[in-house]
Amino acid sequence: MDALVIHAPGDLRVEHYPTPAVGAGEVRVRVRAGGICGSDLHYFHHGGFGAIRLQQPMVLGHEVAGVIEEIGPDVVSHHVGERIAVNPSRACGVCRYCQLGLQNHCLDMRYYGSAMRMPHVQGAFRQALVIQASQAHTLSDGISDAEGAMAEPLAVALHAVNRAGPLLGKSVLVTGCGPIGALVILAARRAGATHIVATDVVAQPLRKAAQVGANETINVAEQPDALARYSAEKGQFDVLFEASGNERALRSAFEVVRSRGVIVQLGLSGSEMTLPFNMVVAKEFDLRGAFRFHEEFGVAVNLINQGLVDLKPLISATLPYRDAGRAFRLAADRSQSMKVLLSFE
Amino acid sequence: MDALVIHAPGDLRVEHYPTPAVGAGEVRVRVRAGGICGSDLHYFHHGGFGAIRLQQPMVLGHEVAGVIEEIGPDVVSHHVGERIAVNPSRACGVCRYCQLGLQNHCLDMRYYGSAMRMPHVQGAFRQALVIQASQAHTLSDGISDAEGAMAEPLAVALHAVNRAGPLLGKSVLVTGCGPIGALVILAARRAGATHIVATDVVAQPLRKAAQVGANETINVAEQPDALARYSAEKGQFDVLFEASGNERALRSAFEVVRSRGVIVQLGLSGSEMTLPFNMVVAKEFDLRGAFRFHEEFGVAVNLINQGLVDLKPLISATLPYRDAGRAFRLAADRSQSMKVLLSFE
Amino acid sequence: MDALVIHAPGDLRVEHYPTPAVGAGEVRVRVRAGGICGSDLHYFHHGGFGAIRLQQPMVLGHEVAGVIEEIGPDVVSHHVGERIAVNPSRACGVCRYCQLGLQNHCLDMRYYGSAMRMPHVQGAFRQALVIQASQAHTLSDGISDAEGAMAEPLAVALHAVNRAGPLLGKSVLVTGCGPIGALVILAARRAGATHIVATDVVAQPLRKAAQVGANETINVAEQPDALARYSAEKGQFDVLFEASGNERALRSAFEVVRSRGVIVQLGLSGSEMTLPFNMVVAKEFDLRGAFRFHEEFGVAVNLINQGLVDLKPLISATLPYRDAGRAFRLAADRSQSMKVLLSFE
Amino acid sequence: MDALVIHAPGDLRVEHYPTPAVGAGEVRVRVRAGGICGSDLHYFHHGGFGAIRLQQPMVLGHEVAGVIEEIGPDVVSHHVGERIAVNPSRACGVCRYCQLGLQNHCLDMRYYGSAMRMPHVQGAFRQALVIQASQAHTLSDGISDAEGAMAEPLAVALHAVNRAGPLLGKSVLVTGCGPIGALVILAARRAGATHIVATDVVAQPLRKAAQVGANETINVAEQPDALARYSAEKGQFDVLFEASGNERALRSAFEVVRSRGVIVQLGLSGSEMTLPFNMVVAKEFDLRGAFRFHEEFGVAVNLINQGLVDLKPLISATLPYRDAGRAFRLAADRSQSMKVLLSFE
Repeated sequence: MDALVIHAPGDLRVEHYPTPAVGAGEVRVRVRAGGICGSDLHYFHHGGFGAIRLQQPMVLGHEVAGVIEEIGPDVVSHHVGERIAVNPSRACGVCRYCQLGLQNHCLDMRYYGSAMRMPHVQGAFRQALVIQASQAHTLSDGISDAEGAMAEPLAVALHAVNRAGPLLGKSVLVTGCGPIGALVILAARRAGATHIVATDVVAQPLRKAAQVGANETINVAEQPDALARYSAEKGQFDVLFEASGNERALRSAFEVVRSRGVIVQLGLSGSEMTLPFNMVVAKEFDLRGAFRFHEEFGVAVNLINQGLVDLKPLISATLPYRDAGRAFRLAADRSQSMKVLLSFE
Repeated sequence: MDALVIHAPGDLRVEHYPTPAVGAGEVRVRVRAGGICGSDLHYFHHGGFGAIRLQQPMVLGHEVAGVIEEIGPDVVSHHVGERIAVNPSRACGVCRYCQLGLQNHCLDMRYYGSAMRMPHVQGAFRQALVIQASQAHTLSDGISDAEGAMAEPLAVALHAVNRAGPLLGKSVLVTGCGPIGALVILAARRAGATHIVATDVVAQPLRKAAQVGANETINVAEQPDALARYSAEKGQFDVLFEASGNERALRSAFEVVRSRGVIVQLGLSGSEMTLPFNMVVAKEFDLRGAFRFHEEFGVAVNLINQGLVDLKPLISATLPYRDAGRAFRLAADRSQSMKVLLSFE
Repeated sequence: MDALVIHAPGDLRVEHYPTPAVGAGEVRVRVRAGGICGSDLHYFHHGGFGAIRLQQPMVLGHEVAGVIEEIGPDVVSHHVGERIAVNPSRACGVCRYCQLGLQNHCLDMRYYGSAMRMPHVQGAFRQALVIQASQAHTLSDGISDAEGAMAEPLAVALHAVNRAGPLLGKSVLVTGCGPIGALVILAARRAGATHIVATDVVAQPLRKAAQVGANETINVAEQPDALARYSAEKGQFDVLFEASGNERALRSAFEVVRSRGVIVQLGLSGSEMTLPFNMVVAKEFDLRGAFRFHEEFGVAVNLINQGLVDLKPLISATLPYRDAGRAFRLAADRSQSMKVLLSFE
Repeated sequence: MDALVIHAPGDLRVEHYPTPAVGAGEVRVRVRAGGICGSDLHYFHHGGFGAIRLQQPMVLGHEVAGVIEEIGPDVVSHHVGERIAVNPSRACGVCRYCQLGLQNHCLDMRYYGSAMRMPHVQGAFRQALVIQASQAHTLSDGISDAEGAMAEPLAVALHAVNRAGPLLGKSVLVTGCGPIGALVILAARRAGATHIVATDVVAQPLRKAAQVGANETINVAEQPDALARYSAEKGQFDVLFEASGNERALRSAFEVVRSRGVIVQLGLSGSEMTLPFNMVVAKEFDLRGAFRFHEEFGVAVNLINQGLVDLKPLISATLPYRDAGRAFRLAADRSQSMKVLLSFE
């Protein structure tokens, strides 16, 4: 079978990979759709991000859906021909964090397509994947492969929303409307937020933000002071989701999040951030990091299956995996695309 | 103007009431629609409930919407002709509980149409009402008076949902599908619950429950053991909303709520309850009472105005206030009606 | 070696037991002290409690401390001659609850000396015990075996305190001053509660309650109305720990716990409870069950080792295990004893 | 009477002030002891901090205790001759934040000796003070004036501890051992923390930290890498209290606070902070600001009165108010003093 292997920045190759055998408790999946994530783009463009750097060739990808082709011994929960989304998060289950229910902080995490550890954990952009049966989440009829592949970024967004606590009736600001920011808007709306304002510096993501639930969108490149009208009474937003990783976005939000407001930081930054931290003290913000997900993957598939969220507005294009280079360039162009997927058929 | 005054069980009269003057910070409202609540029915049928008994004639009603007819001095937030829902909850603002942000436990609460204190607080089933401007919540165009009048019971349901904590992705059981139970289903769905099971002993409320979001409905009069299939692994529900006030409902739910599950009790009971309390200990339930609301009134109007909830399936009928007796009898007939409203025009 | 085996109510025998071999990851402990718990007394007097009944002979006991006599292969964390307290709670680590960090609700729990499952889990009242190394918690010099054996009931009390949330500056009521209630008082004081009132119907436990931190003790058998002076403003207590399992205790506490107060129920009752549940609704109590413990065992040993709690006032007597009958009768006599221990030397 | 008035950096004068009349609900206090706070020092040395600058002469001081000399009409809760600590925090009670129970964020706060608003709120370093009766908290016999004056900084520390959530059994790091950091150590110990590590760059504060409860103290000026041994498993501390306002302290703590650990920032910084914010994301810290206090003032006095905390080790010296300059220089010398008080007799 074929796999998409990154060797160095810009050097992404289709390579032949052996098809693995299926062991007890495992299933083999024919991958059909895979979403290109921001981290895939970082490996492609820069060979990594922050301290995490490619040190050996690595199959990319962790947002995939497909069809079960073979069932290993002892697997009774699934059947051949079943369409599934694949949970790429494999926690050890026994470490200190797993036993606290914080599996996303597992000390021995093996997350698909990640250079965090050495040897790297090979990714899911390949035609066949052998997974634990517990990683397979059944997709309902009528849900496309592309929607299934978006369960993973939706899980990331749901996890951020869970970190914020209840949103029912809350006023929410989302800074940064890439795929994750847009999915946070959609998830916040699903969780009952009543007023959602989205900011970005590019028009196209803001249009998508409005489509998935933002009451108001602000292009802060064009209207740098537009947020200021939310600064009354120490701030009008109950919750901020910072999804841009941009220092200025966080800084400006400090002015419009109310005292004791919640700030969920999920955007990763290319460098350190310089911030007026005394405002965190004086306004007693609850500033919480959000990283990946755990039980939210199942919730994401459940919401998708029931039609309780509509991901279709966020799917920009699906290209054959042999056109990966073009797909990656499209995915990196925020003026044109939101989520770009690869087809592995 | 006319008002609906309860004198004794079954003795509900249309009486002439003086139209009050409008003071500073107040507005006068022409009441147009008023919903009949379970407590109104208790006064009508039994002269009260529990220790709370009618001791003097009292105007009933606390779920009303109308039009502002006159603006008092210093009121700049509203204008004549504005359509509003009326928040019937008037906390003192200064007592121990108000200063904790727990205004629904105010030591000096004056809630419309309540015999809790003496003299009783007169209710809102009358043609004209003078209120504090802060009690007026603007209704959007396209929202009917009847929907506006339902802001109050929706606020009760939202408060119960808030008491439960985040519902995003949660599995929820609602026992009792009267107006409040049905609104809890609708609110739980809005807050992101992914699986909602509703129980009742009457078919009609269960039909409505399905309409407003229940994934599954169970008539426990006909299928007393149907819940049992949710008992695996110490219980499959994350959250129970007990909206019936029925001991058997709570008892049977103890079997199917998971360990550390949340139980929100909002149904009031006609008598004491006898319960296997050791299950609360062994399964470490978080059992929380829910009583009225505070900030949820504004949230309710906001959700209604934005079309984020659809209350119309729950509105059974609107009758003229001069037919109050008939309306009250209809409201008490669960096989026919959900929410019955009075028109005061 | 010898073990204390219960065959039927009142039929407690010293029997010879084979000494088990020590496997990988295990250590063998020479048990030196064992505390008699309320559940041991229930097996002794009634053959069980509630639905849990003796169906086969069972070694009693789960509160023990001793000395490591032998180290199994691969154990590097402990050494021969080390004095330890034994954590009797063995969760499976892999079930749904363990993976949520709720190990005390493990679906496959093997808790020493419990007839909950069949075959019963044999207890720790024996001269030698082979345990997982992770069950061994080192005792500091100067801590007696008896104090070490009390790590288990202290862990139960700490868990109840954790269920209550922060106690710093809180006003606390504890109903029932048996060993667990008394330890809750001690733990609540350690956690920063500023006013602690204790009630019981027997004088001796109340004297002990005062010794371990209660600001005020009330014998409700003699002064049934004494709590009433705490009923102002809907109740003066922020938190109740109900450790008696007595319906009247809980009922009277409903009057003096403030609205939105926290009630932790940890006392098990001999029968169902009949309660004015409408008060749970109207006062919006947070009523939480507390059952056993998990991480609190390590905390208990840590607090004991550092001298941050003083358990000595609660240790009434230590008797040889061959006098078990006398020890159990003494332990059951609340007018004379708090915690009674057995010596296994 | 005399008052201590700051006119400009270094220009602190004893000036005569008129003695105010006592109105309804008020009492007049003869101030006896006043603690010099870091903010007083900032006004004295720099004329303010951050954006807050002296714009007119202002009486300094907000940590005072004294004796009631006169009772206004309607005051029944207090009597002449009563020794009290004075709560300097006067929230409006009616604004949005007060009605949420977040009085420390009051939109109309009048905090003694603060240049935050114009005209400045005059402080409490004067011989006589007229206060609302509700600001007066009775001191027990045996509690010194100096201890009473420390109720205010203790309240700040208790508030920070409350922001952290339960500390029972937790492992705590405190960076910065000035008066507030030291009081946080003392409060964390009172709240049940089992392991407390304190860092500073000066030896004397670390000695005091050990006296009030730190298990271990680290002089990070001398041992910059000593914290590193707490970095195993993504960090060994459950909770950090950052009380230095120093960027390096926070940065180094990021390495040793565990994933999902809680960071309470209460130290104010002289400038913006540059931080590796991606660690907040990846480790999902809960980073919470802590600012002043509200109900904690009463808790502080309660703990002091009951002897549940011992503040005496932190009181370095008491000087006559006429030696204010000397007192302020001593208070600023961390190698010699912790808390320095003024006597106003």
